[in-house]
Amino acid sequence: MTTRRCVCPGSFDPVTLGHVDVVVRAAALFDEVLVAVMHNPAKQGTFPVEQRLEFVRESLPQEVTPVVRVEAYAERLLVDVCQEVGAQAVVKGLRGGTDFTYELPMALMNRHLTGVETVFLPGDPALEHVSSSLVKEVHRLGGDVSALVPAPVLRALGQI
Amino acid sequence: MTTRRCVCPGSFDPVTLGHVDVVVRAAALFDEVLVAVMHNPAKQGTFPVEQRLEFVRESLPQEVTPVVRVEAYAERLLVDVCQEVGAQAVVKGLRGGTDFTYELPMALMNRHLTGVETVFLPGDPALEHVSSSLVKEVHRLGGDVSALVPAPVLRALGQI
Amino acid sequence: MTTRRCVCPGSFDPVTLGHVDVVVRAAALFDEVLVAVMHNPAKQGTFPVEQRLEFVRESLPQEVTPVVRVEAYAERLLVDVCQEVGAQAVVKGLRGGTDFTYELPMALMNRHLTGVETVFLPGDPALEHVSSSLVKEVHRLGGDVSALVPAPVLRALGQI
Amino acid sequence: MTTRRCVCPGSFDPVTLGHVDVVVRAAALFDEVLVAVMHNPAKQGTFPVEQRLEFVRESLPQEVTPVVRVEAYAERLLVDVCQEVGAQAVVKGLRGGTDFTYELPMALMNRHLTGVETVFLPGDPALEHVSSSLVKEVHRLGGDVSALVPAPVLRALGQI
Amino acid sequence: MTTRRCVCPGSFDPVTLGHVDVVVRAAALFDEVLVAVMHNPAKQGTFPVEQRLEFVRESLPQEVTPVVRVEAYAERLLVDVCQEVGAQAVVKGLRGGTDFTYELPMALMNRHLTGVETVFLPGDPALEHVSSSLVKEVHRLGGDVSALVPAPVLRALGQI
Amino acid sequence: MTTRRCVCPGSFDPVTLGHVDVVVRAAALFDEVLVAVMHNPAKQGTFPVEQRLEFVRESLPQEVTPVVRVEAYAERLLVDVCQEVGAQAVVKGLRGGTDFTYELPMALMNRHLTGVETVFLPGDPALEHVSSSLVKEVHRLGGDVSALVPAPVLRALGQI
Repeated sequence: MTTRRCVCPGSFDPVTLGHVDVVVRAAALFDEVLVAVMHNPAKQGTFPVEQRLEFVRESLPQEVTPVVRVEAYAERLLVDVCQEVGAQAVVKGLRGGTDFTYELPMALMNRHLTGVETVFLPGDPALEHVSSSLVKEVHRLGGDVSALVPAPVLRALGQI
Repeated sequence: MTTRRCVCPGSFDPVTLGHVDVVVRAAALFDEVLVAVMHNPAKQGTFPVEQRLEFVRESLPQEVTPVVRVEAYAERLLVDVCQEVGAQAVVKGLRGGTDFTYELPMALMNRHLTGVETVFLPGDPALEHVSSSLVKEVHRLGGDVSALVPAPVLRALGQI
Repeated sequence: MTTRRCVCPGSFDPVTLGHVDVVVRAAALFDEVLVAVMHNPAKQGTFPVEQRLEFVRESLPQEVTPVVRVEAYAERLLVDVCQEVGAQAVVKGLRGGTDFTYELPMALMNRHLTGVETVFLPGDPALEHVSSSLVKEVHRLGGDVSALVPAPVLRALGQI
Repeated sequence: MTTRRCVCPGSFDPVTLGHVDVVVRAAALFDEVLVAVMHNPAKQGTFPVEQRLEFVRESLPQEVTPVVRVEAYAERLLVDVCQEVGAQAVVKGLRGGTDFTYELPMALMNRHLTGVETVFLPGDPALEHVSSSLVKEVHRLGGDVSALVPAPVLRALGQI
Repeated sequence: MTTRRCVCPGSFDPVTLGHVDVVVRAAALFDEVLVAVMHNPAKQGTFPVEQRLEFVRESLPQEVTPVVRVEAYAERLLVDVCQEVGAQAVVKGLRGGTDFTYELPMALMNRHLTGVETVFLPGDPALEHVSSSLVKEVHRLGGDVSALVPAPVLRALGQI
Repeated sequence: MTTRRCVCPGSFDPVTLGHVDVVVRAAALFDEVLVAVMHNPAKQGTFPVEQRLEFVRESLPQEVTPVVRVEAYAERLLVDVCQEVGAQAVVKGLRGGTDFTYELPMALMNRHLTGVETVFLPGDPALEHVSSSLVKEVHRLGGDVSALVPAPVLRALGQI
């Protein structure tokens, strides 16, 4: 029986409860999940990539940690990452109709490049409003984001 | 290692090359695929359910037949079918933004009922225009559907 | 100061927790809310219109009942109902992108006819999957709808 | 120089000011326009097909009548009509995002069948709410449709 | 009876006839309307915030000025502005399907933060094409924007 | 008989097989096609505008070159270009629902400014994933873009 592997890509700058939700769902469908923190060293994000990795690792619920790995990839094609780890699929959480029409061309491009499939998984609608950029904007203006990001991120945001 | 099973549901009245495309993609991602021909005995379709099953079975490429089963279900909740066969996921091919917004409430309902996930898989864009209903309409008005449905359906359509 | 009145129209066949959610939100924005159960006596629904009215009345939380009225209207233009009760606005809950594109022409038509405005109010995303038709389909096939409709409807469904 | 011909298809049951708007725009882009009233003799519409034809013919502004023909087609593939009259394109008015996602598969199907192209032309946004079905519904319930349909239809509606 | 207050937020850089249309509609539905010109002092807009305020104030039709206030807010959460003025709702004009899917996460975020509702109000379709950014682009390239922005903005654009 | 002219505008930085597909379709519908390479001399693109022009010219299949012209326009309103060349229409290829909602306001603005129409033409779905920006991103990260851009662009990309 084939080992079923998938990749959950993103910049995770920082990880949100929406990301965690999708990774946990992916871990119920695949034997192994790679959370791939894609970044461009030439562009500075809000958090350094090492911290983003730590945030994700510390935010995953214990029951999925045996099957989830979290790694950073600098300037890599997602399809090359998939081939390197033997993943049959990319998993993308979907939050609305717009997400899908935005993601579809990338999914088709990746299939064109190496045949890797992208499967779209609806996220928890109760987290529909949670994205890294909106969380950062709310936090910057003094809003309470404690129900939107995991504890490690909350602690770091307290220090910014 | 868990056996990964999914269900591809539909009325398949009749199966199209678009359906076959999605089933083949599903078979590359899961260990076992159940094509579930859902029907309501009280409502007459274009083809009787036995013929729909045969059409699907005869239309699948040989390399996927070892992992794909095709069964009919009369008046059953999709989530009950999933539980019965131990499937972790429903697989739905997507043809456009509208498909997704139509399918999302059903996916969330199914998750609500039993926790089963629905994964959305983009179909081959070259088959974007292929649906059972459009194929039947074109055929009824005398159009050539030979590039839209598998050979067994073509043969049956020739006899109608 | 003007009394702010709105109308929440629908067939409510039967009322769902999604409907209740929208009516409660409307009651927080307007002084008076009319829940208008629109029906066509020539077409039989799942529940008779008197029962639909009762269901809605018994399902509203006590804190909104002083400002919410529930009435049936047979074969009436929504804009005429609005004029009759002096409502400045129609309130429609929105569940997704598709809902909006479906509702927009009717909103513009109503504005064209009498100038009444339609305001769109996002529903609770946790109820995104709840519609009368999907609830009835799930119930018909033996699924548990207890988290989707209010108690009075649940009791009636148990008797069907 | 090639004569540029297009077909504006529909059931036109009855023609609205939205239809007239699109036909007039098409007549500014093509040398000849065929308004094709598609119908199925087995299904009764609101108006008989002869009356629909008359309505369209009497509703077109004089400046376009030299280049617009109006004909009925019973149970014909649109692509066959296009070939018969030598039309390079089908013209469809668009009223919103939903219209397009609904029309796209038919456009791709028609291109697949004979290579005929479908061009989508945004209608006048001030007529966004005008469709045959909504007009009929408003009229049936006693609403004023005088700004939505051409004079010949208005006269007929007065007699219904 | 509660005083019904709403906030119409935006950068209004500069105000367009589309903005004015939505503010006038809001003023017909609420007892008091606050036009909140949100800005970030660290980022230079096209017009200074004082001028944007003046433009809005001078552009509102006299019949709504008794109930509309126009104020600037630097780096403030919209929900905090709503609480400060006791507004029950944010009002957003909608121009198309895309607008809604873009606005929905922000509406849900704001509801999550303080419970304030966002009501979406369809704008006048005849102004569908009017946005501050498109107006500025057309003006920069020498196009006539006199039917798109109010007189005070037109005068200022003439001086740029 | 009027000469039917259209303009296919874009930045073409660089031209893709998706662009070529749309220009070829436009050339089958109009007597003359102008490919307008719109650019802003103040902003540096990936390729200089002269090279973009050359790429387009060398990429068009021979059968359309008699009717297609390729020109650069710096900081010009598209509607002015259309008037200058006597074009009745702008032609835009559409790749998905999102494309249309993005393009619609510009189409309506252009119609407002001079009355020029925009016709939307579905592209080849097999090229749905091909855009200049995605092609450049894939190439930058070492992916194979040989099935996405015409030969002249491929040669240039090999030298970057």
